[in-house]
Amino acid sequence: MNLARSFTALNKLLGFVQISRTCVAQSHSQPALTAETYNVKRGNYSTANASDLDAFRNIVGDNNVVTEASELQGNNVDWIKTVRGQSTVLLKPKTTTEVSRILKHCNERKLAVCPQGGNTGLVGGSVPVFDEIILSTQRMNEVISVDPFSGVMVCQAGCILEKANQDLLEHDLIVPLDLGAKGSCHLGGNISTNAGGLRLLRYGSLRGSVLGVEAVLADGTVLDCLSKLRKDNTGYDIKQLMIGSEGTLGFVTAVSILCPQKPKSVNVVFLGVDKFEDLLLLLRKAKQDLGEILSAVEFVDSDCIGLVGKHLKLVNPIGEYEFYMLIETSGSNSQHDEEKLSSFVEDIITSQLAKDGTIATDFNKMQSIWKLRESVAEALTHDGYTFKYDVSLPAHVMYDMVHDTRKHLKGLYNSVVGYGHLGDGNLHLNVTCPEYNKTIASAIEPFVYEWTAKHNGSISAEHGLGFKKRNYISYTKSKESINFMMKIKQMFDPNMILNPYKTLPGNID
Amino acid sequence: MNLARSFTALNKLLGFVQISRTCVAQSHSQPALTAETYNVKRGNYSTANASDLDAFRNIVGDNNVVTEASELQGNNVDWIKTVRGQSTVLLKPKTTTEVSRILKHCNERKLAVCPQGGNTGLVGGSVPVFDEIILSTQRMNEVISVDPFSGVMVCQAGCILEKANQDLLEHDLIVPLDLGAKGSCHLGGNISTNAGGLRLLRYGSLRGSVLGVEAVLADGTVLDCLSKLRKDNTGYDIKQLMIGSEGTLGFVTAVSILCPQKPKSVNVVFLGVDKFEDLLLLLRKAKQDLGEILSAVEFVDSDCIGLVGKHLKLVNPIGEYEFYMLIETSGSNSQHDEEKLSSFVEDIITSQLAKDGTIATDFNKMQSIWKLRESVAEALTHDGYTFKYDVSLPAHVMYDMVHDTRKHLKGLYNSVVGYGHLGDGNLHLNVTCPEYNKTIASAIEPFVYEWTAKHNGSISAEHGLGFKKRNYISYTKSKESINFMMKIKQMFDPNMILNPYKTLPGNID
Repeated sequence: MNLARSFTALNKLLGFVQISRTCVAQSHSQPALTAETYNVKRGNYSTANASDLDAFRNIVGDNNVVTEASELQGNNVDWIKTVRGQSTVLLKPKTTTEVSRILKHCNERKLAVCPQGGNTGLVGGSVPVFDEIILSTQRMNEVISVDPFSGVMVCQAGCILEKANQDLLEHDLIVPLDLGAKGSCHLGGNISTNAGGLRLLRYGSLRGSVLGVEAVLADGTVLDCLSKLRKDNTGYDIKQLMIGSEGTLGFVTAVSILCPQKPKSVNVVFLGVDKFEDLLLLLRKAKQDLGEILSAVEFVDSDCIGLVGKHLKLVNPIGEYEFYMLIETSGSNSQHDEEKLSSFVEDIITSQLAKDGTIATDFNKMQSIWKLRESVAEALTHDGYTFKYDVSLPAHVMYDMVHDTRKHLKGLYNSVVGYGHLGDGNLHLNVTCPEYNKTIASAIEPFVYEWTAKHNGSISAEHGLGFKKRNYISYTKSKESINFMMKIKQMFDPNMILNPYKTLPGNID
Repeated sequence: MNLARSFTALNKLLGFVQISRTCVAQSHSQPALTAETYNVKRGNYSTANASDLDAFRNIVGDNNVVTEASELQGNNVDWIKTVRGQSTVLLKPKTTTEVSRILKHCNERKLAVCPQGGNTGLVGGSVPVFDEIILSTQRMNEVISVDPFSGVMVCQAGCILEKANQDLLEHDLIVPLDLGAKGSCHLGGNISTNAGGLRLLRYGSLRGSVLGVEAVLADGTVLDCLSKLRKDNTGYDIKQLMIGSEGTLGFVTAVSILCPQKPKSVNVVFLGVDKFEDLLLLLRKAKQDLGEILSAVEFVDSDCIGLVGKHLKLVNPIGEYEFYMLIETSGSNSQHDEEKLSSFVEDIITSQLAKDGTIATDFNKMQSIWKLRESVAEALTHDGYTFKYDVSLPAHVMYDMVHDTRKHLKGLYNSVVGYGHLGDGNLHLNVTCPEYNKTIASAIEPFVYEWTAKHNGSISAEHGLGFKKRNYISYTKSKESINFMMKIKQMFDPNMILNPYKTLPGNID
């Protein structure tokens, strides 16, 4: 196939690729209670009583205090159905003031609280473990302001990522973040978990693009760091502590984000590659040749493509190869972008770095290629109970982890697959098996953490630690760092009511 | 002048613009002692005695303990000669272990310490106020590693920015930071002050591109957050507290930075513009038309150009206008970049948004245009005692501050000028007068801070608070935020030995 020849037909897309993909619930039955599976000990918290419920109704109104078990079911379970909490109260505030009053009450009463956004997390961080009160951002979904000149959007924490992105398009702007769960996830949750996603390669981490955060602390104090300024060097950057702390230091109520210009041209290439080493050479060449228009470099292995075909009936548009690479460019001039991409593709086909490939020539094709990559997580949920690992590794050893895990778990799994954000050194290692059991759990962990630590990686690249990874933090962080984290937690939340059993190490089997 | 026509002659520069500009000492006499000028009260610290000096000599060797007053002179005064300390001891460690041993000793003895890099700061943060021991990074200048594949450079804190950038060029990489003081400033100081500079528009803030920091805490603990990973979501991001805390929480000993590809093509345009509103329209159009290749948007006012002409004999290559705008592009394909720029320039000349301009057609011309912008700070030092303000403001009110300051100070100043990073909403407001005196000082302050706060700006965009701005922090940060900063300081440095009298508010006249 001569990719270069077909290149000139590339679609001159004027908008930005928008692939609607909500988090699809698994068809499996409910998971066992987290507290039992993991043998966790409940903290010394009060239990919500009738008088507490009255107080909450007084703050948010009767309709926004949910106590029906059936209504709470979805909020007690993570979307990949691996953990289940036992909360009996869900609160849906609308304003920062309401959040403040709720937390003040909970803090005084020593009631534990589980902040929840779109509940799309993968580490059990957004669902309760015991009877924590679920404090949801679902009604806090107002866009407060968009300044088309500076590109700064300010919005409440419960705005859905995809919706916010759509709203921005009319101002020729986009959110500098894109991820599979975009149809459900909330921006407040994205910030609280320091979400990475598909566009980090181009627009950098949220630590750079989030300009401001408003958060309510455990005692109800409103911490106003909601700056709209690109630069502000006045003292310590307290808002950074709210970014990525998974709701354990404060409840994020509003965010201010620097949004880049909407690209005028977007192109996608999907390549078949024989060896992982060739993926790395292709990545380097893409950085050199495509430079400033490179917007995503993703990879999936052949098993991933097999699973999205088997479970979701998605069709691989090219032949069968060990690896598949998705390269996206976005820029301000479609002709220039196409010329760069054309020259790049000609080179890699000529040199046989890529064995085959296809270029998206229209929006639908671009969408279907992205869907192959973005649907891997969903396909895995149909393949059995999924052990999910999200590690950062030096690129050259990244796929060795998949090989070594397969060898190590011989006979115990349905699938062991690797995919992820190649351009960021971020591997998603997933192991599926017929159901959760301790034998396979203890065969996998701490094996994968030890492997990661041995290769100077991080045991959580972008998913956070949540409930499931918190006790493995020391594989990545030093004793001194963890010690300071503990002190910071104590400082912000002395009663430890905010998202207990999450992020920091604690009592767990 | 037909800019568009001359465009095709643009230099196809293969490297990156490298303008050597060291910080030039002023010709004025020494400033008065800070302690006297500002009536500061010395903290309750010990004074270094003979036994302390022996201990230091034992750690770093005789040659690296400097006690000669004449040798210490430059380290006691900031480069714009506005503050002067009284230190009698300068220590020059080479390794993190040496820093650790020094700080452990100082902490036990309650000796105050002033960390110092290239001493290019503008807010008195890098020089002592009293007899703090100066702990310099000047010998900690090793590049530890450069990974050309991931683009990650790890180096000691004392590496000079310009030198590090030169070293990276051989790997086709650049430091994502560029600023006037690059010939002298140290990367450790850049990180400690969260330096902004000329490339922030393109590569974002250091909070995104700094991947790791190693710092020694007040008690000698080495805090190892020197990750080389692009993504790491394992707990709270402690290193963010070291970024921008001006050496008050820890002494940065090494840094890990994500470095972008070296652009293959760089172009510079210098424009004459009649009104500030037109600068804003030009900025917006540059973002839209030049998109991903835009790498800097700077402005200076006519008085700045007058001063660099008068004091430094630099020649303005175009006619006289109220404002001058410098736009830089950098990209991976010179032909594409030139086409984008050509079309942009044709439009803005045709529409008369820009009245005149010139395009750099060779390296020397590009250098001389950048020099006009970068030399303003130096020219001001020749114009008298300089009150320097570095504020972030919503773009549409940015230059009103200069007008209002001129009106407010009528008759009291030599010059009131405005220049800065237009693309980042960052104004450098400078007021020169024959010499420092309290009359003009109290006419300027808190006027400029009140003006900034009233317009929702930040009183320090990129310079930090250091000694000179620390007591104005509440014009930008809330009481709650400042309260947490105080607690964090107490947590990291309970004896308050690290860079006292800096960043956080304290006793000052």
